[in-house]
Amino acid sequence: MVGYGFMGKAHSQAWRNAERFYELPLRPELTALCGRSDQAVADAARTYGFAACETDWRRLIARADIDLVDICTPGDTHAQIAIAALAAGKHVLCEKPLANTVAQAEEMTAAAERAAARGARAMVGFNYRRVPALALARQLIADGRLGTIRHVRAQYLQDWIVDPQFPLVWRLQADKAGSGALGDLGAHSIDLAQHLTGQRITGVSALLETLVPERPLPGAYSGLSATADAQAARGKVTVDDAALFTARFDGGAIGVFEATRFATGHKNAMRIEVNGSLGSVAFDCESLNELSYYDASQDAGTAGFRRILVTEPTHPYLAAWWPPGHLIGYEHTFTHQIKDLVEALAEGSAPEPSFADGLRTQLVLAAVAESAAANSVFTPVPSERQARA
Amino acid sequence: MVGYGFMGKAHSQAWRNAERFYELPLRPELTALCGRSDQAVADAARTYGFAACETDWRRLIARADIDLVDICTPGDTHAQIAIAALAAGKHVLCEKPLANTVAQAEEMTAAAERAAARGARAMVGFNYRRVPALALARQLIADGRLGTIRHVRAQYLQDWIVDPQFPLVWRLQADKAGSGALGDLGAHSIDLAQHLTGQRITGVSALLETLVPERPLPGAYSGLSATADAQAARGKVTVDDAALFTARFDGGAIGVFEATRFATGHKNAMRIEVNGSLGSVAFDCESLNELSYYDASQDAGTAGFRRILVTEPTHPYLAAWWPPGHLIGYEHTFTHQIKDLVEALAEGSAPEPSFADGLRTQLVLAAVAESAAANSVFTPVPSERQARA
Amino acid sequence: MVGYGFMGKAHSQAWRNAERFYELPLRPELTALCGRSDQAVADAARTYGFAACETDWRRLIARADIDLVDICTPGDTHAQIAIAALAAGKHVLCEKPLANTVAQAEEMTAAAERAAARGARAMVGFNYRRVPALALARQLIADGRLGTIRHVRAQYLQDWIVDPQFPLVWRLQADKAGSGALGDLGAHSIDLAQHLTGQRITGVSALLETLVPERPLPGAYSGLSATADAQAARGKVTVDDAALFTARFDGGAIGVFEATRFATGHKNAMRIEVNGSLGSVAFDCESLNELSYYDASQDAGTAGFRRILVTEPTHPYLAAWWPPGHLIGYEHTFTHQIKDLVEALAEGSAPEPSFADGLRTQLVLAAVAESAAANSVFTPVPSERQARA
Amino acid sequence: MVGYGFMGKAHSQAWRNAERFYELPLRPELTALCGRSDQAVADAARTYGFAACETDWRRLIARADIDLVDICTPGDTHAQIAIAALAAGKHVLCEKPLANTVAQAEEMTAAAERAAARGARAMVGFNYRRVPALALARQLIADGRLGTIRHVRAQYLQDWIVDPQFPLVWRLQADKAGSGALGDLGAHSIDLAQHLTGQRITGVSALLETLVPERPLPGAYSGLSATADAQAARGKVTVDDAALFTARFDGGAIGVFEATRFATGHKNAMRIEVNGSLGSVAFDCESLNELSYYDASQDAGTAGFRRILVTEPTHPYLAAWWPPGHLIGYEHTFTHQIKDLVEALAEGSAPEPSFADGLRTQLVLAAVAESAAANSVFTPVPSERQARA
Repeated sequence: MVGYGFMGKAHSQAWRNAERFYELPLRPELTALCGRSDQAVADAARTYGFAACETDWRRLIARADIDLVDICTPGDTHAQIAIAALAAGKHVLCEKPLANTVAQAEEMTAAAERAAARGARAMVGFNYRRVPALALARQLIADGRLGTIRHVRAQYLQDWIVDPQFPLVWRLQADKAGSGALGDLGAHSIDLAQHLTGQRITGVSALLETLVPERPLPGAYSGLSATADAQAARGKVTVDDAALFTARFDGGAIGVFEATRFATGHKNAMRIEVNGSLGSVAFDCESLNELSYYDASQDAGTAGFRRILVTEPTHPYLAAWWPPGHLIGYEHTFTHQIKDLVEALAEGSAPEPSFADGLRTQLVLAAVAESAAANSVFTPVPSERQARA
Repeated sequence: MVGYGFMGKAHSQAWRNAERFYELPLRPELTALCGRSDQAVADAARTYGFAACETDWRRLIARADIDLVDICTPGDTHAQIAIAALAAGKHVLCEKPLANTVAQAEEMTAAAERAAARGARAMVGFNYRRVPALALARQLIADGRLGTIRHVRAQYLQDWIVDPQFPLVWRLQADKAGSGALGDLGAHSIDLAQHLTGQRITGVSALLETLVPERPLPGAYSGLSATADAQAARGKVTVDDAALFTARFDGGAIGVFEATRFATGHKNAMRIEVNGSLGSVAFDCESLNELSYYDASQDAGTAGFRRILVTEPTHPYLAAWWPPGHLIGYEHTFTHQIKDLVEALAEGSAPEPSFADGLRTQLVLAAVAESAAANSVFTPVPSERQARA
Repeated sequence: MVGYGFMGKAHSQAWRNAERFYELPLRPELTALCGRSDQAVADAARTYGFAACETDWRRLIARADIDLVDICTPGDTHAQIAIAALAAGKHVLCEKPLANTVAQAEEMTAAAERAAARGARAMVGFNYRRVPALALARQLIADGRLGTIRHVRAQYLQDWIVDPQFPLVWRLQADKAGSGALGDLGAHSIDLAQHLTGQRITGVSALLETLVPERPLPGAYSGLSATADAQAARGKVTVDDAALFTARFDGGAIGVFEATRFATGHKNAMRIEVNGSLGSVAFDCESLNELSYYDASQDAGTAGFRRILVTEPTHPYLAAWWPPGHLIGYEHTFTHQIKDLVEALAEGSAPEPSFADGLRTQLVLAAVAESAAANSVFTPVPSERQARA
Repeated sequence: MVGYGFMGKAHSQAWRNAERFYELPLRPELTALCGRSDQAVADAARTYGFAACETDWRRLIARADIDLVDICTPGDTHAQIAIAALAAGKHVLCEKPLANTVAQAEEMTAAAERAAARGARAMVGFNYRRVPALALARQLIADGRLGTIRHVRAQYLQDWIVDPQFPLVWRLQADKAGSGALGDLGAHSIDLAQHLTGQRITGVSALLETLVPERPLPGAYSGLSATADAQAARGKVTVDDAALFTARFDGGAIGVFEATRFATGHKNAMRIEVNGSLGSVAFDCESLNELSYYDASQDAGTAGFRRILVTEPTHPYLAAWWPPGHLIGYEHTFTHQIKDLVEALAEGSAPEPSFADGLRTQLVLAAVAESAAANSVFTPVPSERQARA
């Protein structure tokens, strides 16, 4: 595994625990952890249960005892590591967003296709697909329980940088993070919207905004929390603080998207609602184990949004966990991801979401940025094929 | 009063009851009700408590025993009735949207200004301003409790025409209704967004969609409910079914708006959330007596969105009603409107929202339509002054 | 009408408005209002729309132009007024609780039966039966949608006397109010529990508590709000502040009841939940227009408590009001009560709940008090017949 | 560890993961797992990560490489295993309820005190104390934020045996389980009520009910799920299906408790609310990461129950997990339990809850059963000292 920040912590927990709850066809081993700082990576390896360390990802890839490379670094490094790892015959699990640019994502997708021909598989980590409530939503939609899809309404609301004294961490720098709320949060919403509905976004009209344009330069910080000295020198925020866009889907649905880090009071409100001609589903990540479902086929007198507590053994992924009514947490989505990945590898099938799926999201992100730069004009999203032609 | 449909019923209830709960400086009398059909208007007058009837609004306006004309007709007739009534020296209360076009709204605003100089007052009926929870939200924002406003998030979700067999009622015809979800629902959201934040919308990027383009021609229908014969001839829906737009405000806030009649399961979900640097408020009309409020000045350990049950005597309009915890309903917003209107008339002050406020909303509606017609390009909203220059 | 406090205000609103929304077979007229204080009753009559006043209820009853007496006074006066009015051939609507003692309630029930034989009808005002959501709950249970009833869980939570400086108003004095939270709040829960389930409470085990035993004597106060001088003389609270009891029903269900004025933060949380073998319903008065319903016949994967927004025209009482999604308030329950009462009077049928129903609740209240006084021992509730034998 | 059912699975997950998130002063090792069936225990050991197996708990206790015995068996075996393990100088973690009878719990408490003198520690596993939201509730109450405690309202609602065809599993047999809903569910509520308020229950008045008195004998079953053959022979249910009781606390509070397995639609609704003179807190296990808090010191205009999302680093236990807004699950309560236990062992201090705490709950359970058997008469709960005198 490369990287041991927030995502490294979540991924390693998943790698360690998947086999305790699911009967996996292959047994994951945490062979080596890679990071730049000698001491820090050694500490993280011990905490997370890795047997060894590396400080150069090239060395990690070169190791013969490694079958899979899990990339948990900032987006600017995804492409080179993933392409090299795939070239070296390793399977790759790469955190989202797939890359910081469409060009990188295209190269990665091409590399993944070449590697697949040789048996090395690539997957991108949109973990919210593995929230049981969202997997259930997808099932209901795929089964036609919602009828023709009319509306998608997606919000990803956080508030961790409302304070203008919050420092200029890497997530606020375009060279590291690619974009701000758009790529970090919006990417999840875009992937989910297309995954749940089975429809592609064909065009967008967008508005990006940086609400606090300058911030203190960080001293030391880690992950999502940081504090700044009031006297600190200031630098320019080079990413968006908030991204708003409307969208059209190829199946006729229309959508509204909002991703922001300035929604005071909302900590991680990744919400999505889908309205169809026969029903609706709605989800809020702050109520992770619940799906709200409206079934229009019920008689009008007793119809209503119902709160499905998604903890039944018949629900996706749930049979492995606890009895009904006992909740699971955020980290479980990564465990489910590992389960599905390991099963696909054992079967020799392609794990999902593929790099091509990651590229598809990247194309939407690029169209959003393009529209925002062009006075919000409606901007078509090319298909992966078009993009790569 | 002209018109006795849904709005006529709500307004007459308010005129009858305001004096029972508030000490009004003037005593409203329900002198005459006007409608086109002899028999129907007589029945309505009896039910609603009007002393007399008219079948021509010109005759109504000509009556000497009438001081105020309350216009509850479809939008295409607002301008001529209101202008004539004001010219006749009557006060006017006109249902929203003020008019079907900017041009009409401008004429009405000019007429209102002329009339004001002669003591006849004009008010437009954005009743949601008088929901106590929203009046409280405005107070909190005006008092600076939310700090700098960053985000507005407004949805108006209904589902009464999801069924493609629902007939082509007047609200689905552009010549009568002006627009569809946009003017009927979005107008409320626009007025509220500007009213709550005290900021003006300076530009929009929009997408309008007619999801069911043809519908059965109606036989007979009334209000929001109707049924259609499956064999019925069909006509073209000439208004939008859904309106989505992003917006910029003159104080730096950005907003997302959605108005739709296809949000299956939502009956009248007029929702609005405002995020500021110091706090947030959120409201949903399906929980009419509640305001959700996040106060970021509370310590992080106990901060959280709180559900304020807006039924305390210290809350706006509430002292007149029932003890804490006893809810009021939709119709009470109209009673509050009458109270404020009558008090303004007695004082000789200008009731709010004024026709100029109605024009301001109309200008946003027009910009939304213009942007949607121009590939969603960001479209500035002129100020009332600019518009009338 | 006798009395013009909180209940008088609510009842008069209902009498004035019922005919505006329902086609009533008889036309209510607000002939005269009765109260002790000359000036106050005149003011109230004007505000509420009564044509005349009386200061002695005996004079009211003696008037020939009065057909029905509506009793909105404290419980200690119900019996004598109601019995006299019925004897005078007037119909009677009496606020709950029917009386302060079982003996009074029995006399009133006997009087009502005698009067019925002569065509004068009596009804007791348990207005919560006319909340549409609760009327719907009763329908669902009566239709067998919940199967065998297992559990009743009823809470009535208020907090208006948490402050020990709140004065000793009449509702805290046993001679006026009979009991405290038990009779004022618990009576509603008891009536509803029996009404919804169609089962009678056969015995109870109870605990009553006065949490603040002394309070300042009131200067002037009215209704539920009052303030006290810190130096004020103090008197003894002679009623319960909270009543807790468990119960058995004749159909095999068991129940838990709690009524309190010390549930800080709850203003009027009259809640009731019923669990049956096939489903459950739950209601909270602070969400007056909603019924929560669980249908166990749905597949486990999509079952969940659904929030029914009880505003459809097919819901009880709703067709007369507003379109779906537009809420009604507390006062509407009284309007529904008047509608049902007037219809019953026109038909010559017995309005419900009858005085016998009121007596049934009184018998439970008495058993609760008896059990609490006897170390909580399980205490049978006699049937009305047994009680009167 | 002894036992590898539902609790064994949860405990082993906690033992494996605690050191990954918390810096523990000692390093847990999963040395050996004990169960009756050779094959099954070997499978479980492999799945859960234990190095070895035993089929006789006496052999487990005799092993020199074991420092702590974690007892996850049905209640009837707790006493003998725990007493023997403590006598052998092992630390003991014992699942709740501590025992099936007061006599056993007293012996265990005495054994724990003798062992403590020799350095072997005993803890009982009321894991809900380690739900962060409940730990926060306790802090708020201990800090005086709720003022004088007036009310406790505790419900533990499940529905897994509503179907009368559900078989007679061990949890429905008094000889194995001691009691039914009372000991399984009510024990949690009792421990929490006393733990949160810092007050002891001094007496109770109770009603126990077995709603389905006979059930099919089980063939094979495991944990909470089971299915039965319709033709199966039937046996008598010897435990309560539901337990209802009222209670008095030594600090003057009063409480209502309900534990049932017949609350259709509720899967694991462990709810508790505490009302004090200055505020209230409420919790529902189906919304595990939330605490509802009402602060009466806020101005009346903006006071309201606030939903605290208990995921901040300043919240109890949370700094070790994920960023704000990212939820944790049921199993995490066990990880927190291990953290606290290991820290106490390293410090040589007494872990909480102690066996004396477990005995205190047992005494309440016994008083509940006694009251229910004596016509619900109010039955005092002796203190541990009195009980053991």
